[in-house]
Amino acid sequence: MKKRIFKLVEKGSHGSVLNVTFDYAIMILIVLNTIAMMLETFPNIKSSLSSFLEIFEITSVAIFTFEYVLRLYISDITHPSTSRIKSIFKFTFSLYGIIDLLAILPFFLPFIIKIDLRFLRMLRLMRFLRLLKIHRYNNSLSLIWNVVKSKKAELMITGFVSILVIFISSFLMYEIEGKAQPEKFPNILESLWWAIATLTTVGYGDVYPITGIGKFISGIIAILGIGLIALPTGIISAGFMDKIEKKSKQVKCPHCGKNI
Amino acid sequence: MKKRIFKLVEKGSHGSVLNVTFDYAIMILIVLNTIAMMLETFPNIKSSLSSFLEIFEITSVAIFTFEYVLRLYISDITHPSTSRIKSIFKFTFSLYGIIDLLAILPFFLPFIIKIDLRFLRMLRLMRFLRLLKIHRYNNSLSLIWNVVKSKKAELMITGFVSILVIFISSFLMYEIEGKAQPEKFPNILESLWWAIATLTTVGYGDVYPITGIGKFISGIIAILGIGLIALPTGIISAGFMDKIEKKSKQVKCPHCGKNI
Amino acid sequence: MKKRIFKLVEKGSHGSVLNVTFDYAIMILIVLNTIAMMLETFPNIKSSLSSFLEIFEITSVAIFTFEYVLRLYISDITHPSTSRIKSIFKFTFSLYGIIDLLAILPFFLPFIIKIDLRFLRMLRLMRFLRLLKIHRYNNSLSLIWNVVKSKKAELMITGFVSILVIFISSFLMYEIEGKAQPEKFPNILESLWWAIATLTTVGYGDVYPITGIGKFISGIIAILGIGLIALPTGIISAGFMDKIEKKSKQVKCPHCGKNI
Amino acid sequence: MKKRIFKLVEKGSHGSVLNVTFDYAIMILIVLNTIAMMLETFPNIKSSLSSFLEIFEITSVAIFTFEYVLRLYISDITHPSTSRIKSIFKFTFSLYGIIDLLAILPFFLPFIIKIDLRFLRMLRLMRFLRLLKIHRYNNSLSLIWNVVKSKKAELMITGFVSILVIFISSFLMYEIEGKAQPEKFPNILESLWWAIATLTTVGYGDVYPITGIGKFISGIIAILGIGLIALPTGIISAGFMDKIEKKSKQVKCPHCGKNI
Repeated sequence: MKKRIFKLVEKGSHGSVLNVTFDYAIMILIVLNTIAMMLETFPNIKSSLSSFLEIFEITSVAIFTFEYVLRLYISDITHPSTSRIKSIFKFTFSLYGIIDLLAILPFFLPFIIKIDLRFLRMLRLMRFLRLLKIHRYNNSLSLIWNVVKSKKAELMITGFVSILVIFISSFLMYEIEGKAQPEKFPNILESLWWAIATLTTVGYGDVYPITGIGKFISGIIAILGIGLIALPTGIISAGFMDKIEKKSKQVKCPHCGKNI
Repeated sequence: MKKRIFKLVEKGSHGSVLNVTFDYAIMILIVLNTIAMMLETFPNIKSSLSSFLEIFEITSVAIFTFEYVLRLYISDITHPSTSRIKSIFKFTFSLYGIIDLLAILPFFLPFIIKIDLRFLRMLRLMRFLRLLKIHRYNNSLSLIWNVVKSKKAELMITGFVSILVIFISSFLMYEIEGKAQPEKFPNILESLWWAIATLTTVGYGDVYPITGIGKFISGIIAILGIGLIALPTGIISAGFMDKIEKKSKQVKCPHCGKNI
Repeated sequence: MKKRIFKLVEKGSHGSVLNVTFDYAIMILIVLNTIAMMLETFPNIKSSLSSFLEIFEITSVAIFTFEYVLRLYISDITHPSTSRIKSIFKFTFSLYGIIDLLAILPFFLPFIIKIDLRFLRMLRLMRFLRLLKIHRYNNSLSLIWNVVKSKKAELMITGFVSILVIFISSFLMYEIEGKAQPEKFPNILESLWWAIATLTTVGYGDVYPITGIGKFISGIIAILGIGLIALPTGIISAGFMDKIEKKSKQVKCPHCGKNI
Repeated sequence: MKKRIFKLVEKGSHGSVLNVTFDYAIMILIVLNTIAMMLETFPNIKSSLSSFLEIFEITSVAIFTFEYVLRLYISDITHPSTSRIKSIFKFTFSLYGIIDLLAILPFFLPFIIKIDLRFLRMLRLMRFLRLLKIHRYNNSLSLIWNVVKSKKAELMITGFVSILVIFISSFLMYEIEGKAQPEKFPNILESLWWAIATLTTVGYGDVYPITGIGKFISGIIAILGIGLIALPTGIISAGFMDKIEKKSKQVKCPHCGKNI
């Protein structure tokens, strides 16, 4: 019995028809939940469909809760440990265990503690994260993840230098443009907003320099923004190459016939 | 006779003078069609040249229709099958067969069914797709296509994570900025519009956050946008490298004759 | 005598002190010319410095003309041919010959034919191109050029597909947004302007969609814009890799000791 | 005694607990300094916390000065030379020596010479640069630096061509758009501002062409902007590859012992 639940809930290499069906059912449910959440943002739709949306919400949470209980039940298979309680504990605090809990928690929270409804609605966003579970066994996701992880140090330094550039340019801009247009650069936070919008080349156009020196600095930041794109891209390209190189290395020496 | 039509219409490795001429003639006709469609969008040009543009449209469709009939006629050579009808069927539903049909269909549709003229004009855009046929045998197009296809899984996951980021940030922004500027973020669809404009670093400037938290989230999305550029670029670079690597593997040492 | 002029004017592998000095002198002259052209765009500076700027312009043209005459004189060394006239002809129509001529021509044109002064001033921009000559023997420039050239086919197809996307989206946008905001999308040319600003992720914010479908299409174009960046970058990365790969190939077979 | 100070101040491969603690303490102090500088930009916070911020500023400078004196004291170990004065001289004019001096100088300057207070506040930004010292022994930073340095020539040429494009397009735009909207393109400097905003795809939307030819040129610049991203990215990717290639070359077949 427990093993059959395990086979149903956990998509493995076997990939039985039932298991794939279960996976797709959960996926469709999340997509429907997303659509329901989107519909709720239209006032007139919300009022006319309120009862339907409420029933759908309760049904969804019921299904997710049932699935969560199932996973708790089989936790001694998925997270083997010395005792049953330790297994449950292990699952509850695993990445996917937390995601599953966060998907249902916002519904039960008001019954336990008093909570701001607006904050609660935002917590329901956690349900999206469950979509990441679909690719649980996806080689590609883990490949990308490994590449990013293997280049963590280089990417962090790029990020660190970018932050340095953002801060220095923000302070410079606050000193220079703050005099010319105090309503646009009243403090350093607004200046940071400008710096990020410029360095990432978004450029909304709500804040921009009007003085000569301000434009000069802005131009330099924009050009450094090209570097901010070029560096991580080059690093990630190199990361992917590394993996290919390593794979291509695992060939035989063509002369002595042994693996290298 | 049929073979000569085949040689004329289908550009192969032989590349006879007549065939190349035919190819360029069709290409020029499409370019002229595009110019004609562009001219039609200027009201005064349209009214003064209306009769000329109409004649040109009829001539173009006549030529494309004639070419389509020719291709139907030689379909038993290009799409060999057990019976003639099956060959015609095969051609009609092949990629290039559909493109060719779509190029002429909008002209004949009003004679068959009642149709919205505005929708019809948009269908004429299909004629552009025929330009893709020029490169039918182009190695470069198929190389790019193969690279993108070989990295389909990685690119899809990047896209999937991007969609996740877009949705989560849209809901967050709707909750935060929807209070501060309800006319800019009235519902989740407008919020999605902002998220895409920010993540792709387009930043038109029609919608942007004004609250502190909104700007903070917007900054994070803009920085993630850099990742959205870096990741697919790295993946595609790796894809091109893969192809080069594979080719470079298949060489022999020209002196000792052993594979390297 | 002629050989000494040759050594002065043409920077070769020898790189004599005189020749390097000459190279820098020409470079400084072009930079000064650029500054002079920039100063001319400020009305008050132009009026107060008009006589000085005029003298500087005449002096510059005199130097460039003298250099051009020198190059014509030694053309039988730089462009050896069967006869003297053929050598001059060869030089005059070589890339650098044309650039040199364009740098001085705008000054002499009004003496020969009647010409719009505004158009003439724009022609003086050609003088900038001479800066490219400084790097005439630069290995890096030729490396970049070779990489771009070796990937010409792939880059052209990317460009071709981009043009296709721009045209299709422009026509779609004209049909959809042209109804909602006829002053922004009055004809296909304005629509093309929007398409390029979106696909390149510039996003000035002067033209943007306001209808739901328009925003949807705009979002797709913006996402395709990411591809427009990713594809050429990947192709150029691969091009640089190709060159490295080829160089690293020119090693000896470690077993038989011969070059591979 | 001197050696113990050396071990405390200079983070080496030993990485003693005390040394790491010292490193983090300096780092936290810089972060706190940054926050203090940010708080000072809010007028009401500045007035209410002025005495506290002043004390904090004096304390910070005292610590940095003490550290600087320590480094001067041990300069004969870190920068060994023939004489003590030469060692001090060597440290003072080393990169990190200058950074350390710049971090404390703005505080002492008004006691020495009369100086504009606004300019002084900007000098305090130099303190940020000290953060770069944290990664003094970081392999990743030096890897990135080496890659950028090894491709200096190629990157410089890309930059040079970009400047050429910026200047030529600026002059063209000044001639064309300067007539149509003289308040937006009054002189070449404003035109340069537009060119940089377009080429880097920032596109604030404060300056954009309104004439047909202006839009055409702007479109070309925006497309060239894609190249400006693609080229350095490809070059940097190639740089990282070079390093990997070189490393992978230096392996032996572990079985037959020959170099591969």
